[in-house]
Amino acid sequence: MSYTVSSNSVEPNPGSMIQEERRSTSFNVQKMFEFLEGSKQKAVDTLSIMQQLERDPILRTSLRYYEYGTEKHREETAAKISRMAQYIEKDAPDMQTFQNRLNLIAVVDPQLGTRIGVHLGLFLGAIRGNGTDNQFNYWAFERGAAYIKGIYGCFAMTELAHGSNVAALETTATYNRKRKSFIINTPHVGATKWWIGGAAHSATHTACFARLKVDGKDYGVKVFVVPLRDTAHMLQPGIALGDIGEKMGRNGIDNGWIQFSNVEIPKEYMLSKFATISDDGEVIEPPLAQLAYSALLGGRVTMVTDSFRTSERFITIALRYSVGRRQFKQGKAASNNKKMPQSESQIIDHPLHQHRLLPLLAWTYAMGIASNQIQSDYKATLSMLESGVRTQDMKVLGVAIKKLKQLFADSASLKSTCTWKCLQLIEECRQACGGHGYSAYSGFGKGYADHAVQCTWEGDNDILAQNAGRITVQQVAKMLKTDMKPTGNFSFLAGKSKIGHTIDAEDISDLSKLLLALETLICRLSSNCLDLLSKNEQNWDSISTEKKSLSHLYAIQYMLSKGIQRLTEMRQSNNGGINTPIKLLLSLFALSGIKEYADVFLQFDVLSTQTYAKLKERIGTLCLEIRPMVIGMTDSFKFSDFFINSVLGCYNGDIYNDYWKAVNSLNDAFDTKAPYSHDLEAMLKRPTVAQRENFEKGSKVLQKLSN
Amino acid sequence: MSYTVSSNSVEPNPGSMIQEERRSTSFNVQKMFEFLEGSKQKAVDTLSIMQQLERDPILRTSLRYYEYGTEKHREETAAKISRMAQYIEKDAPDMQTFQNRLNLIAVVDPQLGTRIGVHLGLFLGAIRGNGTDNQFNYWAFERGAAYIKGIYGCFAMTELAHGSNVAALETTATYNRKRKSFIINTPHVGATKWWIGGAAHSATHTACFARLKVDGKDYGVKVFVVPLRDTAHMLQPGIALGDIGEKMGRNGIDNGWIQFSNVEIPKEYMLSKFATISDDGEVIEPPLAQLAYSALLGGRVTMVTDSFRTSERFITIALRYSVGRRQFKQGKAASNNKKMPQSESQIIDHPLHQHRLLPLLAWTYAMGIASNQIQSDYKATLSMLESGVRTQDMKVLGVAIKKLKQLFADSASLKSTCTWKCLQLIEECRQACGGHGYSAYSGFGKGYADHAVQCTWEGDNDILAQNAGRITVQQVAKMLKTDMKPTGNFSFLAGKSKIGHTIDAEDISDLSKLLLALETLICRLSSNCLDLLSKNEQNWDSISTEKKSLSHLYAIQYMLSKGIQRLTEMRQSNNGGINTPIKLLLSLFALSGIKEYADVFLQFDVLSTQTYAKLKERIGTLCLEIRPMVIGMTDSFKFSDFFINSVLGCYNGDIYNDYWKAVNSLNDAFDTKAPYSHDLEAMLKRPTVAQRENFEKGSKVLQKLSN
Repeated sequence: MSYTVSSNSVEPNPGSMIQEERRSTSFNVQKMFEFLEGSKQKAVDTLSIMQQLERDPILRTSLRYYEYGTEKHREETAAKISRMAQYIEKDAPDMQTFQNRLNLIAVVDPQLGTRIGVHLGLFLGAIRGNGTDNQFNYWAFERGAAYIKGIYGCFAMTELAHGSNVAALETTATYNRKRKSFIINTPHVGATKWWIGGAAHSATHTACFARLKVDGKDYGVKVFVVPLRDTAHMLQPGIALGDIGEKMGRNGIDNGWIQFSNVEIPKEYMLSKFATISDDGEVIEPPLAQLAYSALLGGRVTMVTDSFRTSERFITIALRYSVGRRQFKQGKAASNNKKMPQSESQIIDHPLHQHRLLPLLAWTYAMGIASNQIQSDYKATLSMLESGVRTQDMKVLGVAIKKLKQLFADSASLKSTCTWKCLQLIEECRQACGGHGYSAYSGFGKGYADHAVQCTWEGDNDILAQNAGRITVQQVAKMLKTDMKPTGNFSFLAGKSKIGHTIDAEDISDLSKLLLALETLICRLSSNCLDLLSKNEQNWDSISTEKKSLSHLYAIQYMLSKGIQRLTEMRQSNNGGINTPIKLLLSLFALSGIKEYADVFLQFDVLSTQTYAKLKERIGTLCLEIRPMVIGMTDSFKFSDFFINSVLGCYNGDIYNDYWKAVNSLNDAFDTKAPYSHDLEAMLKRPTVAQRENFEKGSKVLQKLSN
Repeated sequence: MSYTVSSNSVEPNPGSMIQEERRSTSFNVQKMFEFLEGSKQKAVDTLSIMQQLERDPILRTSLRYYEYGTEKHREETAAKISRMAQYIEKDAPDMQTFQNRLNLIAVVDPQLGTRIGVHLGLFLGAIRGNGTDNQFNYWAFERGAAYIKGIYGCFAMTELAHGSNVAALETTATYNRKRKSFIINTPHVGATKWWIGGAAHSATHTACFARLKVDGKDYGVKVFVVPLRDTAHMLQPGIALGDIGEKMGRNGIDNGWIQFSNVEIPKEYMLSKFATISDDGEVIEPPLAQLAYSALLGGRVTMVTDSFRTSERFITIALRYSVGRRQFKQGKAASNNKKMPQSESQIIDHPLHQHRLLPLLAWTYAMGIASNQIQSDYKATLSMLESGVRTQDMKVLGVAIKKLKQLFADSASLKSTCTWKCLQLIEECRQACGGHGYSAYSGFGKGYADHAVQCTWEGDNDILAQNAGRITVQQVAKMLKTDMKPTGNFSFLAGKSKIGHTIDAEDISDLSKLLLALETLICRLSSNCLDLLSKNEQNWDSISTEKKSLSHLYAIQYMLSKGIQRLTEMRQSNNGGINTPIKLLLSLFALSGIKEYADVFLQFDVLSTQTYAKLKERIGTLCLEIRPMVIGMTDSFKFSDFFINSVLGCYNGDIYNDYWKAVNSLNDAFDTKAPYSHDLEAMLKRPTVAQRENFEKGSKVLQKLSN
């Protein structure tokens, strides 16, 4: 028997579209990569690290990774940590190269990044930030912690009942004068150290945050090195700890709880750069104690970079998919691929899809600019601070402290804004890939779950935004009261309270005018906050939603102003045609940022309703202008398939075949039956209800029973 | 040796605060429950079902559920399906009770809900919607599919390269006149049926969407019953299928792919309520063919209910936690618990936290109102439609079709708006629980991952919102052109285009004025769309962002108007004091809905900037008024700990002890070492680099090698 089956279906060929658009990219992708990385040299370094990582057999992260349970994740992560420890030795003493390496591997395996980040950034960072030089040298180099050798550290700050309010932690460190020691104790379940990464199975030591108590007097929270496990990796007496179990994401991290039951440590284990205790219990705290938490800043700065890198990864997947995928015909398609035979449009040619994804692409570039800037500020500030403390040069120290305060404001605003934006980006990109975005092999599911915690840890975003917003209001208050010009990144505030600037329709295409509008709004909203404060007995909680908006607006101002600066610096040189696309992206970033806060812009009359209508139109035309460059703009991230790790976003663009092959190789052909098939078959073949009840409700039985 | 450790820490007691607030609830929680469920009788029914479900040993869903891998989820889900099948027999012929049961169990085990929903709602729904009475009777009752007996169905609509654009599906069903049969064929990989729930391991039959082809002519997509597995549960020849593997969530579902290689089915397996084919291949399609997709509506309606139920669950967890958790002192705390000894504030007393959670509580109530309304509209419409088709009474049919169109618009708008809002709610609630929200045992992680797909499947939210927005614009166009009054749920449009209404400051507390403002905006924005369309050669894609806004605004208008209606109906009776809290919640819902679209309200001059400032203030005072009732308002959902299934949200409120005990019982005390400890120990104890390299880079060696 022969069937005559006619089929004129044409097999989709998404790869050809992606490759055609790649060929027609109008700018130099290498130059754009250098712009994103910050310099030509940094671009070379990044590529070289990427290549080493993706070729390393132990660091391999494949699609299988999305199928692992917690045990498998933990095992593999342990092996990867051990591998990364060898790279520290290789990179030493250049810790910056290792930090870049860590930031890059974290894109494809975030939990690995955290595992090492907790040890190097938090545990060793606390010792570096709060310990004396001798203390740091002992733990880091003599004992080997700097190379994850001899010591594996964790960071025991948060407790079950206390997270954001560090000053209210309840673990105690009571001084014992006779024995010149501290007794570390957990007073009740609520004070159990909680969420401690590395505690459950790994850490040999912890940087423990505890209330220093001497003769009943409470000196507030200080940091102590407390050994947890001995050289045989066995728990020390008095230490109780365990696994806090399954998490939303990052299950490769062995987060644990710790309870200290009167654990004695030598007096010398208190980190004493800012607070010292004499043998007979006198506590000396120089005014520099305010710097004690500076070690936490590094994490926030890293998270700006991580948000950038993670956004690079996921926007690439969504945009490649949106170029390769066709669905529905479009009225007036803006496609630049009129030659394609299929009649459905590429989904990126649907205006709504452009509105969905292209502002997020623009944000990704803006985050890259912010990441470069704050990383370099951080390094400069920290080294100035350390030299100031070491030399006790009060002038250097004064400048350093001012810079540190600026960094505190910048990092609070940028960490919260960027981690939130990145989370939104991952979810939006997932939805933009339709049903296939829900496949674990697309990478979005684990990507979202892994990134989500960035909005919470090392400074809850809501709290950080409150802090950043408060600083802005205070800067404006000081400026209005004292006529002192704000300095540093706040210098833009100067003079803005007096002018009555409003964006006009013709200003929409002028980046500097958009920046001015943002700055004007920040100033007006801050002034408004001051009015509200005076009405509400200076209760800062009464302006909490305004502070949150100010923090976001400050971040947008930061990114836009640094972006304009970079653009101005570049104008002199021949850049392979990247100036125009960058300008388009910055414009879209600025306009979409303003659109997000359009209600406030309109309310404070920085924007008229007529101009707002024009502004929305302009977003649409900007999307159309950027549209033909999306493949080039994402290729410019130079993420190989290893870093993308998604069936939907490979470089070749052969989406359906890649996906089809992956699904088939990962899931063995089902030739017999599933392990639970017997349950289903028994259900389908079950006897009738009457049979299963042995007919005991039948009329004959009931008749018998009625007599 | 004895230590003297002083500790004046007071153990936190969150339960006492929650219970005290529960005692002081100002309204009757039972009456509120009845309001939410729609009637006293429905409330009784819901409670009775809940009790049966939570006591059933096979349906048990515990904290362990959050630790399962895919295999375990699949196994347990199979056993639960089998158990639920027995409840169908028990509930029969009352399918509504079983549907309620399914909606409820889906709150705590969404994948189970989907598994059964695909069989009953999609597979059998397609047969009911597209088949003749005889066809439905055979497959549903004679063969037993209605009881998941004999037949397990799946729904083969989407393909690898086609999802939203159903009309462009590429699987073919070619008529073979000689054999009076259809040949079902998959022309290429892109046309592989994909995401088919139940296909990988379970289904015996599928409702297959394929292009009907007769003599080379394409009649578009029709539905065919295609057997996949025989009575021994073995694959039929010509059928290739497999598992599509790991997903972001709902891994208990065995989503699969199917390829048909010239599979022959009898002509009678085509579902032919709307399209018939004669033996010699003549295709007859009555004008009613437009109703062919009506079976999909049920899923959308169910998702409104599911968004409501899921929101009930997660807002309860976040609010109980926010009452029990203390963190930071507050300037002017709005706490109603001044007696508590601790000095930190309950986090719900921080204004920002109120702004974060209370509008979401208000949305939950609004979704409950919407769910009740659309469920009852759906039932009425479907039964009218079926009786119309059966009796061929054209008058009845005419009304039914009109109602069906209304339902299409309502469900498109509400499904997209509510599933999006619910997803946002879960994430916001997770973040509001700080670090602990990231624990899998909080329920948020799996809750988010499971719900996320609701925004994508059975009508992608972006597409549905486009459809709903377009209908609104068309209604306004018709009204302006013909002076015909819109009817049904669109009747509010009448007259709104002419008036120049703007909300004044004093209108903010008047629900009917807020409703009027919403309606005015919908009308103005629609008129604006008509202008834009005429400027853009009627290209509907040019107003896609506006259509999306219109869809959301329509949903808000729907919920608010139905809420006001319910409130008016209740005014006569004594309701245990629930009218005031409901009014407060509806006000907060309306204002926060307006705030979300404030830029559009301001742009179209329905709101002045002065009034907007007042409106934001009013949101703050509404939050303060609702604040003391949050425990009562969430207790009113009557979700027991079984349905909550979270360590952070138990009824007793003893958060820290519950969490501590759960973590300890789920994760065995770690007394020896982790399975991967050897890797870590080897790393910590590794020799120096020089040793590991056997000193082969040492100066002595190099000297030797240089000669």
